[in-house]
Amino acid sequence: MNLLSDTTAPVHPALLAALADANEGYAPSYGADPLTGRLKERLEDIFATEIALVLTTSGTASNALALSILCPPHGMILCHDEAHIHRDERGAPEFFTGGGKLLPLTGEHAKIDPNKLAAALAEWPQDFVHTTPPRALSISNLNESGCAYSTAELQALTGPAREKQLGVHFDGARFANALVSLGETPAALSWQAGCDVLCLGATKNGAIGAEAIVLFGEARDRLGELQARQKRAGHMGPKTRFIAAQMLAWLEHDLWLDLARQANGAAAEIARLLTASGGAKLAHPVDGNEVFVRLDPALERRLKSAGAGFYAWPDGSARFVASWSTREDELAALAAAINR
Amino acid sequence: MNLLSDTTAPVHPALLAALADANEGYAPSYGADPLTGRLKERLEDIFATEIALVLTTSGTASNALALSILCPPHGMILCHDEAHIHRDERGAPEFFTGGGKLLPLTGEHAKIDPNKLAAALAEWPQDFVHTTPPRALSISNLNESGCAYSTAELQALTGPAREKQLGVHFDGARFANALVSLGETPAALSWQAGCDVLCLGATKNGAIGAEAIVLFGEARDRLGELQARQKRAGHMGPKTRFIAAQMLAWLEHDLWLDLARQANGAAAEIARLLTASGGAKLAHPVDGNEVFVRLDPALERRLKSAGAGFYAWPDGSARFVASWSTREDELAALAAAINR
Amino acid sequence: MNLLSDTTAPVHPALLAALADANEGYAPSYGADPLTGRLKERLEDIFATEIALVLTTSGTASNALALSILCPPHGMILCHDEAHIHRDERGAPEFFTGGGKLLPLTGEHAKIDPNKLAAALAEWPQDFVHTTPPRALSISNLNESGCAYSTAELQALTGPAREKQLGVHFDGARFANALVSLGETPAALSWQAGCDVLCLGATKNGAIGAEAIVLFGEARDRLGELQARQKRAGHMGPKTRFIAAQMLAWLEHDLWLDLARQANGAAAEIARLLTASGGAKLAHPVDGNEVFVRLDPALERRLKSAGAGFYAWPDGSARFVASWSTREDELAALAAAINR
Amino acid sequence: MNLLSDTTAPVHPALLAALADANEGYAPSYGADPLTGRLKERLEDIFATEIALVLTTSGTASNALALSILCPPHGMILCHDEAHIHRDERGAPEFFTGGGKLLPLTGEHAKIDPNKLAAALAEWPQDFVHTTPPRALSISNLNESGCAYSTAELQALTGPAREKQLGVHFDGARFANALVSLGETPAALSWQAGCDVLCLGATKNGAIGAEAIVLFGEARDRLGELQARQKRAGHMGPKTRFIAAQMLAWLEHDLWLDLARQANGAAAEIARLLTASGGAKLAHPVDGNEVFVRLDPALERRLKSAGAGFYAWPDGSARFVASWSTREDELAALAAAINR
Repeated sequence: MNLLSDTTAPVHPALLAALADANEGYAPSYGADPLTGRLKERLEDIFATEIALVLTTSGTASNALALSILCPPHGMILCHDEAHIHRDERGAPEFFTGGGKLLPLTGEHAKIDPNKLAAALAEWPQDFVHTTPPRALSISNLNESGCAYSTAELQALTGPAREKQLGVHFDGARFANALVSLGETPAALSWQAGCDVLCLGATKNGAIGAEAIVLFGEARDRLGELQARQKRAGHMGPKTRFIAAQMLAWLEHDLWLDLARQANGAAAEIARLLTASGGAKLAHPVDGNEVFVRLDPALERRLKSAGAGFYAWPDGSARFVASWSTREDELAALAAAINR
Repeated sequence: MNLLSDTTAPVHPALLAALADANEGYAPSYGADPLTGRLKERLEDIFATEIALVLTTSGTASNALALSILCPPHGMILCHDEAHIHRDERGAPEFFTGGGKLLPLTGEHAKIDPNKLAAALAEWPQDFVHTTPPRALSISNLNESGCAYSTAELQALTGPAREKQLGVHFDGARFANALVSLGETPAALSWQAGCDVLCLGATKNGAIGAEAIVLFGEARDRLGELQARQKRAGHMGPKTRFIAAQMLAWLEHDLWLDLARQANGAAAEIARLLTASGGAKLAHPVDGNEVFVRLDPALERRLKSAGAGFYAWPDGSARFVASWSTREDELAALAAAINR
Repeated sequence: MNLLSDTTAPVHPALLAALADANEGYAPSYGADPLTGRLKERLEDIFATEIALVLTTSGTASNALALSILCPPHGMILCHDEAHIHRDERGAPEFFTGGGKLLPLTGEHAKIDPNKLAAALAEWPQDFVHTTPPRALSISNLNESGCAYSTAELQALTGPAREKQLGVHFDGARFANALVSLGETPAALSWQAGCDVLCLGATKNGAIGAEAIVLFGEARDRLGELQARQKRAGHMGPKTRFIAAQMLAWLEHDLWLDLARQANGAAAEIARLLTASGGAKLAHPVDGNEVFVRLDPALERRLKSAGAGFYAWPDGSARFVASWSTREDELAALAAAINR
Repeated sequence: MNLLSDTTAPVHPALLAALADANEGYAPSYGADPLTGRLKERLEDIFATEIALVLTTSGTASNALALSILCPPHGMILCHDEAHIHRDERGAPEFFTGGGKLLPLTGEHAKIDPNKLAAALAEWPQDFVHTTPPRALSISNLNESGCAYSTAELQALTGPAREKQLGVHFDGARFANALVSLGETPAALSWQAGCDVLCLGATKNGAIGAEAIVLFGEARDRLGELQARQKRAGHMGPKTRFIAAQMLAWLEHDLWLDLARQANGAAAEIARLLTASGGAKLAHPVDGNEVFVRLDPALERRLKSAGAGFYAWPDGSARFVASWSTREDELAALAAAINR
């Protein structure tokens, strides 16, 4: 039972097959290939709006690149204290922005508390030369505690931010998991909820490494600068056709949603098994493919001795992550370990 | 006849097959997978020495990361005026070093003239607080004019640089092409020639995107810092097993050398066809898979009307690049176009 | 009654006179002048240890330069949430470190709570490649709420930090005020309390613009790098003799301590007047030259209509700052305004 | 005879006196003081146009700040190979721009050759994502070989640069020397000659440390960003009144021009003495206060044994710098040493 992370999972075979299909003859480099063009059109259908598009192989890079066109070196990015960009990217946003500042905000279940956002916006003015002004808001959905922001919750944050001219970034490393959990459309969970730039990740959901930076509305005007920064950061790989191919296969026939649904379903089952045992309490609601529980020592020992792979989270909880490839027999083994 | 670049070529089937083989079950992320471990051992055999290893998917990133551990923000990198790091990476070394300075040196056929190196080392002292001190030397082999530095030529540069405590970086995006052209061993063309950090590229020679940053000797002590910078730059993709798999397949049974030999052979034939026609003169020796010629206008027109793909180089020459996948029928078509 | 800030105060005449004295004939530039040499000796006497020394004209620059030799771009600086480096320097530490991260810690009266420090050190490990490791601790003494850390309080913070190999920076913009308040020696409040680099400021205490970055112990080995960064940041002004002259005059016959004592005394009187009126409550202990009070609306109106200059602090309190030049008649006018 | 540099000279007494005059009572910090306001008006008179103004104490800082609002991190600054910003500022422009690239151009007597500029603009396109686009042109006047660009020479450079939307920076560390040498108005040698941002230096011409960054025309819109960067770089010292006071005194009754005239006259006399001896040949025309000569070994020995202070320039010439304070007796001593 490897429930350590969705990045340890194998790649979905349809995406590997797409690589082979894409490998026919010559193709222009650096995003000028036909597959990248086709992907852009496909995403415009899916998001029901015009977009600008940049592809990378890394979620950290996508987030940092996106933030670097929203926040100047002398500006500030507001995010949750648990945000991946703050906790798990070794200062990538600081690097790509040229020294921007991240201000960690608190809130239950890794959701930014709108009151904390309001307080930060009040405390850090837009136009006082001595202090760093907030210029961007970053929201992860699905978030780092495995919780999904509803559209209303998103708007309660993006509304006040946009009023102050902040750019809005969504970290969508697990966007598909949030989508199927909430039953919303991609448009509703992105630009209609106040998002300027969405980092849409496939890597945690079946791909080798395929991430799309999707610019909406006026943010599309920043494509040129984004490409300059992408190139300069070594993230404009020459053979973009192989990223586009993965992502096209991932979107085809709603495969991305199916995989997310599968992962979310497995997580729900993991949560059910753990809590039903009486030896675990949910630390956060399970909205996607991640389960955070507080484990009794006895259960923890049983799980470990059965070789269950999970992660001790810094806050004292245990994190179990399901992926599209979590198998029935793994869940059965988990159940057996719990009830031994 | 697509002779625009070796990055427009398809991927070698053996590398795609290796991806599928690597896609079995779970694997630790971020370089802790068994394939990456095996690759390190394989490279230590090939280079006949102990190494430290970092994998990325981008040559620009590899170069910039390598330089960032050799040159501080207040230091200088010496390179040829035609160097890819200076001309074609949108300031990536400046970004990754935190504002280091590149000093472009001249020399025939994109080879740094040892006298120019000596002059620069004399002009820019190591210990004068007002001026930027040289801290790294970067050499491309195969270089940007398609020429190979011999081991003696390399030592004539790395010797004086090392005497002044400069770190030495080799850009080996086409290292295999240089190897087979010179008939040298990997060790002879790297650490034995004074190299601290080699960026060994497979992307231009059959891979989707696979680049190894190879640290030799004392440079291995900088692995920790290199990994911190790799992570921070978004170049520590989670699923390293798929980069390692490509590179292992590429090295297997000397495939990398065979592919390079094939590309070099095709380039030699292109050079022969062009010059034999009387309508083209070589601008540089053809040591690898790139051919630079000065074209007569008449021949240029004939080639263009036949749909030949090549690149107008900034210096007025025309660049033809062969790859492992350049086919006999393409060469025949080129011959036909030349002689029409 | 201008009690807005100690930077609005005039310069002490002895320091102006010293400028004229220093203006005799030619003097070597960039710190090689005899006055700078004499200042270094004087400071070594005062701090009772060997030091390395860099002079600037700006406290923000001194702090950021000092931090840039303690914390790499991929490292983290721990400081209080109210710290000047976090709140009032527009991201200077992030700029000078090349993108380092500041982690704001809490604690009463702008003093870092040792438990919060311990928690941060536990939460952010030293050697996990994905997270930003703490590399420096920054403490302001006198701090931003006008409070002084005792030597025991300092050691409770610097001890655990040094155990984890963090570099320790003291922001001493009001170091003299802390010294006279605590009755400690300069050595006791700096290197003996675990400080590697002290930014000793004269600007808020009588100078035009004179700040010393003082390196203790092993930190002295970083002088070369500090000078490189100082030059590169445009903070190695040519005519250092005029900074050294100011600081020598400031230290002469303990003038710096006299001026600090005067300012602290005026602040104590301001605090007494305000609280005695019943219309103000101290928000923080008054250990130096700053008074933070919560004002009754009636008293606030009276003060404002009398033209008293003070600053509305973001936390809702009112800040009154005394300087060496706060005059008896200003205190009398304040008393009159309070009691009108 | 100290002819090493104009930064070793003493400060003009009128400027010291102005400090004392400015030292009356309280004054707002950070540029809000009345003297800074008055200085802005005075400069608008002198330059016959509306300006925006920022003051610093350092020429290196002024140049780097100015360039940082003209050139993005992914852009390039064109300058002469001898430019102070390239040769003598330890990478300050690279630091302040966040990793911009300097492209050194050649040309006689440290003047950029317009053909070299044209070639660079052709070679480095504005809109190719892989290469660094020129975004700013930097011209020193008086330049690093002591030569003055005429208005026609300036326009031959700024015209083509502005056509390509480059911002134009003038390094005016010795602007006054160029002014009196050419007999032009300040307007003619700045905005009328295509300058967007002038760094006007008083430090080499009588001040302790006083530099004005003067924004013309549309560049004035970037004042907000410039101030943010000034603050963040630690160059917004609190007590701006003392910089403004120096500069006002310097401009009063054309003192700045008188001092420059005096320095230029002394340099002309030094050049006459050296060349008349037959032992020295001018390396460059003497347009300002700097003399570059190639010295016969015999004369060089005589000068050294007489204790003459001058600087061995990297190109093999000897640099003699006169300042406002070069005295008759020093010139007489030089003559004696030459003719001994």
